[in-house]
Amino acid sequence: MVGFDRAEIADVAGAAADAAGAVILPYFRQMNLGMENKDAAGFDPVTIADRAAEEAMRDVLSERRPGDGILGEELGFTEGDTGLTWVLDPIDGTRGFISGTPTWGVLVALSDATGPRFGLMDQPYIGERFVGGLGYAEMHGPLGRRPLKTRAVRNLGDATLFTTFPEVGSQTEAVAFRAVSERVQLTRYGMDCYAYALLAAGQVDLVIEAGLNAYDVHAPIALIEAAGGVVTNWTGGPAHGGGRILAAATPGIHAQAIDILMNY
Amino acid sequence: MVGFDRAEIADVAGAAADAAGAVILPYFRQMNLGMENKDAAGFDPVTIADRAAEEAMRDVLSERRPGDGILGEELGFTEGDTGLTWVLDPIDGTRGFISGTPTWGVLVALSDATGPRFGLMDQPYIGERFVGGLGYAEMHGPLGRRPLKTRAVRNLGDATLFTTFPEVGSQTEAVAFRAVSERVQLTRYGMDCYAYALLAAGQVDLVIEAGLNAYDVHAPIALIEAAGGVVTNWTGGPAHGGGRILAAATPGIHAQAIDILMNY
Repeated sequence: MVGFDRAEIADVAGAAADAAGAVILPYFRQMNLGMENKDAAGFDPVTIADRAAEEAMRDVLSERRPGDGILGEELGFTEGDTGLTWVLDPIDGTRGFISGTPTWGVLVALSDATGPRFGLMDQPYIGERFVGGLGYAEMHGPLGRRPLKTRAVRNLGDATLFTTFPEVGSQTEAVAFRAVSERVQLTRYGMDCYAYALLAAGQVDLVIEAGLNAYDVHAPIALIEAAGGVVTNWTGGPAHGGGRILAAATPGIHAQAIDILMNY
Repeated sequence: MVGFDRAEIADVAGAAADAAGAVILPYFRQMNLGMENKDAAGFDPVTIADRAAEEAMRDVLSERRPGDGILGEELGFTEGDTGLTWVLDPIDGTRGFISGTPTWGVLVALSDATGPRFGLMDQPYIGERFVGGLGYAEMHGPLGRRPLKTRAVRNLGDATLFTTFPEVGSQTEAVAFRAVSERVQLTRYGMDCYAYALLAAGQVDLVIEAGLNAYDVHAPIALIEAAGGVVTNWTGGPAHGGGRILAAATPGIHAQAIDILMNY
């Protein structure tokens, strides 16, 4: 892999996230007319913020890493020639964003053909950034800088499980989720990408979701793997294509959850 | 009501919340051994933080407002002689707290026999404070200082609804919640007291919960009423005793939700 310098990649990803946050924050909690407040072309404020943030990130990446490809939620795929692709979700958790919750995030990943190699999740309202891959994993925020390390829970019965919606996805997917949920100590909802950051930070043990897109999962996969966790689909295969996602703090707890999910 | 000066009350409540936050924050996200990590007396870290924070708030209140009563989640009721009672929940949302989510809060209210008159919700990790009652309502946080004002949604079909758990409470309570949820535009979960702050801030339109305690609701009631919203139980009666809570952005949306909930 040519030109893959950890410090440079982290710096570029951070600059892209900074650019996105600066664009997005003026829209956060400004939309108390809700989704009725569309512009002449029919776009609501969150769509405007989403697109403008992706454009701002693309400007940074085009200047700093002109040969890399870019895959973004809003503006699609731009091919590169380095074998590396930046995978961007400017506002992950738009429904949380329009509700004013501080648990949406800016996702930036750098991936090759084998999957994500580096990931960053930024929560600019709180001032928190989670970074992992290429041999390190750390976060900084209101309490300072800390390493990211998943926790060593052994049994499903001691685990904390997150998902965003109780419906999860299809009816089958909801039933599968509940089969795991019935076995864990605590199930919580509503955190979008923030749940993956909490898993990387050793605060929760499992995140199970369905119907995700590639740009939703590349950064979380890199973060969690760098922090010692495991992310796959519900049959144990690669997760970076999106779809049904199982993220776990340890290989052991991952195996216990897969044993349940693979029946669905 | 004797000695009821708005600036003084706000200042005392803020000092109590500051004291609580200073006690609690060192425990936040430090518990990656989870609830197994109990001390010799069998207390887990969140219980220790909860109690120590309430003691710190009681110290402030005893010094600054020695005649007022105090009702706290952890240490019960201390009678006063002014007709006023401080109602305290040092960590509202303990399950969110132990999961590392930034949506728990320190709740401080001042109430008389008719109910809450002043309320404060503090989120010390983010650095956000929501204050309302005695003729004003405002918040400050990462984006500065802003008035609190509920938004003017007209129809249930345009509303955003929050609750913490999809189970809500009893089976009947869950069915009642779902009857409202099926009529709104967006339902979200998992925010604990933070959902009430978002309602006061004009970001969401309804919060419906059940099985709450008095100390969970006094501060949210004062905040939301001061911001133009309505908080009652599910039959339209006073909410400050706890139980089944309906908080709404406007009297109109409140009436539409009550029409559904009163059937359960």
